Parts: sequence; structure tokens; C-alpha cells
Amino acid sequence: MTNIAVIGATGLVGETFLSLLGERQFPYNDLILIASGRSAGKTISVKDRDYTVREFNEDDFDNIDIAFFSAGSETDRALVPLAAQRDTVCIDNSSAFRNRPDIPLVVPEVNFDIIEPQDRIIANPNCSTIQLVLVLNAISEIYQLKSVVVSTYQAISGAGHSQLVNFRRQSREGYGEDADKLYDNLQLSIGSIDKDGYCDEEIKLINETKKIMRKKDIDISATALRIPLSNVHTESVRIEVGSNADIEKIRSHLQKQGDLIKFNSRMDIEGISDSDTVFVSRLRKDHDNENVFHLIISADNLRVGAALNGIKIAEGLLK
Amino acid sequence: MTNIAVIGATGLVGETFLSLLGERQFPYNDLILIASGRSAGKTISVKDRDYTVREFNEDDFDNIDIAFFSAGSETDRALVPLAAQRDTVCIDNSSAFRNRPDIPLVVPEVNFDIIEPQDRIIANPNCSTIQLVLVLNAISEIYQLKSVVVSTYQAISGAGHSQLVNFRRQSREGYGEDADKLYDNLQLSIGSIDKDGYCDEEIKLINETKKIMRKKDIDISATALRIPLSNVHTESVRIEVGSNADIEKIRSHLQKQGDLIKFNSRMDIEGISDSDTVFVSRLRKDHDNENVFHLIISADNLRVGAALNGIKIAEGLLK
Repeated sequence: MTNIAVIGATGLVGETFLSLLGERQFPYNDLILIASGRSAGKTISVKDRDYTVREFNEDDFDNIDIAFFSAGSETDRALVPLAAQRDTVCIDNSSAFRNRPDIPLVVPEVNFDIIEPQDRIIANPNCSTIQLVLVLNAISEIYQLKSVVVSTYQAISGAGHSQLVNFRRQSREGYGEDADKLYDNLQLSIGSIDKDGYCDEEIKLINETKKIMRKKDIDISATALRIPLSNVHTESVRIEVGSNADIEKIRSHLQKQGDLIKFNSRMDIEGISDSDTVFVSRLRKDHDNENVFHLIISADNLRVGAALNGIKIAEGLLK
Repeated sequence: MTNIAVIGATGLVGETFLSLLGERQFPYNDLILIASGRSAGKTISVKDRDYTVREFNEDDFDNIDIAFFSAGSETDRALVPLAAQRDTVCIDNSSAFRNRPDIPLVVPEVNFDIIEPQDRIIANPNCSTIQLVLVLNAISEIYQLKSVVVSTYQAISGAGHSQLVNFRRQSREGYGEDADKLYDNLQLSIGSIDKDGYCDEEIKLINETKKIMRKKDIDISATALRIPLSNVHTESVRIEVGSNADIEKIRSHLQKQGDLIKFNSRMDIEGISDSDTVFVSRLRKDHDNENVFHLIISADNLRVGAALNGIKIAEGLLK
């Protein structure tokens, strides 16, 4: 049986990993939960068994087969190689290794086949990338993708636990002493801005989508904003394909994706948080260009956009 | 001296009209405030004088030179012609007359010159249109516009007073019995959906922009969403021009627009509500196409996007 570790176990993505282990009846023997010194000593219950959170110790990894890392890019950049040296397969949710050409960046439904038996580090893509790529991949089965323009409506949960707590408190009590005004505000960028004016999140979305789709000739542009919403990322997407876009053909193909992709029957995002499905809305043809169509993509960013993808990678490896 | 009327005086846009009359020292002699029977009899103070809100009576308009209508498209469609027949110049903030080829749709800085002396109905554009067109017009002075892709982040105030009150209450107390969940939700469309899948707001944004810019050969696509935010509309915009887009040239030109357009010095929207300026953020060149650039446009939708534009039309007429 498999021994697993969750690093960053007390964060929002770590907690989601632990929920999914139970929900999906992920087969494991031993489980260790690792977090920073601040959280070490806490007790967390997983599948009705209590585990004490401990600090990272590389010797632990001699017995760990698969480790789910989501402790942030700085911590993961330092710790993942130590675990990988002990032969643990590290599925890393941070951005630390995603751009490295020697490390596979994987959405299982799209490119699981790029994982080699000797790979010990597998990068889990950015939240906004995963939900986009799942839809683009389905469309690429019936059309040649030429260009994609994305504007994101990203939730506060993507910024982590403390921001989410602040947002909820601010909405009820006002800003108080908080410097970050999250409630009744709109963040016009996510992450730091590069010399060309792009923010981190946009660069991730562009570069990761190209890497996963293995098609450098798709033009991709992205604008990433964070809206005052607890959970669920939404994307407004314009897609140009190589020929006349037949909306009914696209709709019909997207409806064949089982539980992976479904059409949202509502005009809001109720019911999308806590779902493992990517929801598509507002599919429609461009008014001016017959090769262009538009749609909206929404998904639970902690599940579909992070932990679920990591768990699916691990499930694929165990097969 | 000019006699004026404000119809829909107790609505969010009506209230903003009244604030701006004072702030801008709009010259008038008599002022009448009109609203539905529900609000008739209320007293409203404008420039330290009290006015009693009354119901619409077409005879009143014999003495009214300019009327600002914002009572919703159904009411305005019925009442505006009655006032116009009495020779009142009606500046209508609803969508009732915007698409009529015989009625000017005006953003004063862009196309005030289309107003003819005999015009008695002048349509005020949609909120999301005005802030976009002001920026497009400035850019059109230095580049040929080829295509525009817009995704909107629209505030709850655009849906009216009762929705705004509900949003603020829900954020503090939860949804209660409300069917419309506004807080911690995202509306994936604004207005009803047509047979092609477009919502009203998108059609307004597309058609009105083309009409105001007088250029039917600009491709325009729009996706309109309402976010859980009190006030200020934001737009993520991709613009394709006829030649290599020089970002510094565009920045420099936008910086020459005085108080009309300014660069937002922040990465959020603090300070934009209650401002009469259109704020531009995140100007940057596309990674893949040298003729394409991206920017974000934010403005107070009740002021810049509605009442201020109407007042500026009236100010132009009085010159």
C-alpha cells in the first residue's frame, strides 16, 4: 500500500487535499501531515482518524511514496527536491517548478502521457490554468485553436486562508485596521507586475496553458483580476478557431464530457463551490468574426483548480 | 434662465443628477422633481432648497427647457415623447431611444456635434458604454481602431437602489429570504438573453459603441458580468489597432486628457467611486500580436456612466 504526505496540510489547498482523499477513497496506508512550525502539533482528523501535524523532516520521506506539496512556492522550492531525493513522487501545487522544461506540468485529462517513470517532481498547474485548459482541450478535439483571450474573475480563496477570513470579516464588520480592503473592492492585478506590465497570474495562465497544450502557436492573452467573492474562479473567454465555429457542434461536444465539464443551468455561480465539475455558460458566436466564439468558464478553484488535479495525477500514477 | 426637471429623481441616477447640479453649479431657475406615485410627496433638498417630489404631469413641461429622464426604459418610452411634444429637450438615460437612427446617442467629448437644433430627445448611453467610448475615442486620435474585446466587471448600483440595499444587507446579515443572492455571488449575465445567447447589456455595449464611434467597421465583442461590488464598473479591454501599438505613445496620449482620463495609481478601485474621471490601469502590449494591447478601464457608473454624461450634454446645449 501507498504511504502519502500532505505538505501545507493546514492551508486551504492542503485541507482540500485531505477532504478529497476521503471523498475519492484514495488508497493509502500511512499518511503524514506536514505544516510550518506555527501549525505543528495541531490535530487533524482524516477519514475518522486523528493525525498530529508535524514540521518537515526529510528523513520522513524514506517511507513516503507520494507527497502533495502546497506550502507556497518559496517553501516548496526548498523542500520538494529533498523529498524527491528520497524517491518520493512530489506533486507540487506551487509555481516553483512549473516552468522548468525538465519537469512535467500535468492536467491528467490533457497530458498525463508526458510523465516518465523516473519523474519524481510533477508540477500541478495554476488554478486559473486548469479550468481553462480542460475546456480548451475538449474544443481542440473538434477545432484547431488559433487564439484565446481570457479575463479572469478570481476568488479570494486563491489568495489563501488569512485573506479569506479577512474578506468574510470585513463584509460583516467593515475594514477596521486592515490595510487590504477586500470586501467591496476589486483587485486589478494578482501577484507582482513585470517590466511589461503583466502580473504573475497572467504570465502563469499564458505560459502554463501553452506548455500543457503543447502548442506554442496558439496566441494567448490574459487579464487577471480578483473579485470580492469567497470561492470559485470564473473566466470570460474569447476563442478563435481555424474555421467557422459551429456553436451547436461545440455545445454538443462539450456536453459529451461526462462530469468533467457541464453546462451551468444558472446565470450565477451557486452550486459551483464544492463541485468537481468545470461549468460552462453563455456559449455564443461572435457578431463580427465567424471563426470566433465566446464562453464563460467557472470552477471551484481549490478543488478543480488545485487539489483535485493533484489527486487525479496521483490516481493516474497508482494505476 | 433655464427651467429643468429630473424624472426618476429618487433613483440612484436621479440622486446623482441632483448632486451634480449643485457640484457643477449648473445654472437653472426652476427645478421640478418627478418620481412614481410611491415616492410622490417626499421632500428632497437640492442646493439647500427643499423640493416636493411630484408625479408626472405633461402640462408641467410647457415651462421646462431641459428634462433629465432616468425612470427606466418602460416609463421613459411612454413619458419622454409627451415632454418632447411640449418642446422640452429630454436627455434620456434609459435604453428606450438609444437605437433609433433619428435620435442622437451622445457622449459630449466624442460626438456632441451630431445634435441638431431641432432635436428634442437625446439619448444618454449605457453606463458600460460611456467609460469605454471615452477611452476608445482618445485612442482613435492616434490609431485606427480595428477590434475591441471587452469583459465587464459591473457593480450592483447599476441594477438600482433596491438591489444595492439588498447587497449591503446580505453582506452583513446573510441572504435571509432573498431569492437574489448578490453578496458572495457572481451574475453571469446582465439583462435578458437573446436567441443568439447575448444578454441585453452586451448588445447595448456593442451597438451603442458602434453608433457613437460612427465606425461600423470596428469589430466589437462584449461579455457582461455583475460582480458583488457596490459601485464602479470596470472593464478588461483588448484593443487591436491598424499598426504596431506603441505603448508609450498610447500612455502619453492618455495622460494628455486632463481630468477626463487618468491613470489609476493603485491596483484596486479605491477612490474611483464619486470621481468624475475615467481611470485606466494595466496598459500593456500583447505578447503575440504587435498591433494589440490591453488595458483596464474603471469609472463611477452612476456619475461618469450616467448622470455626469447627461449633465455635460445639457451644459453643451446651454453654451
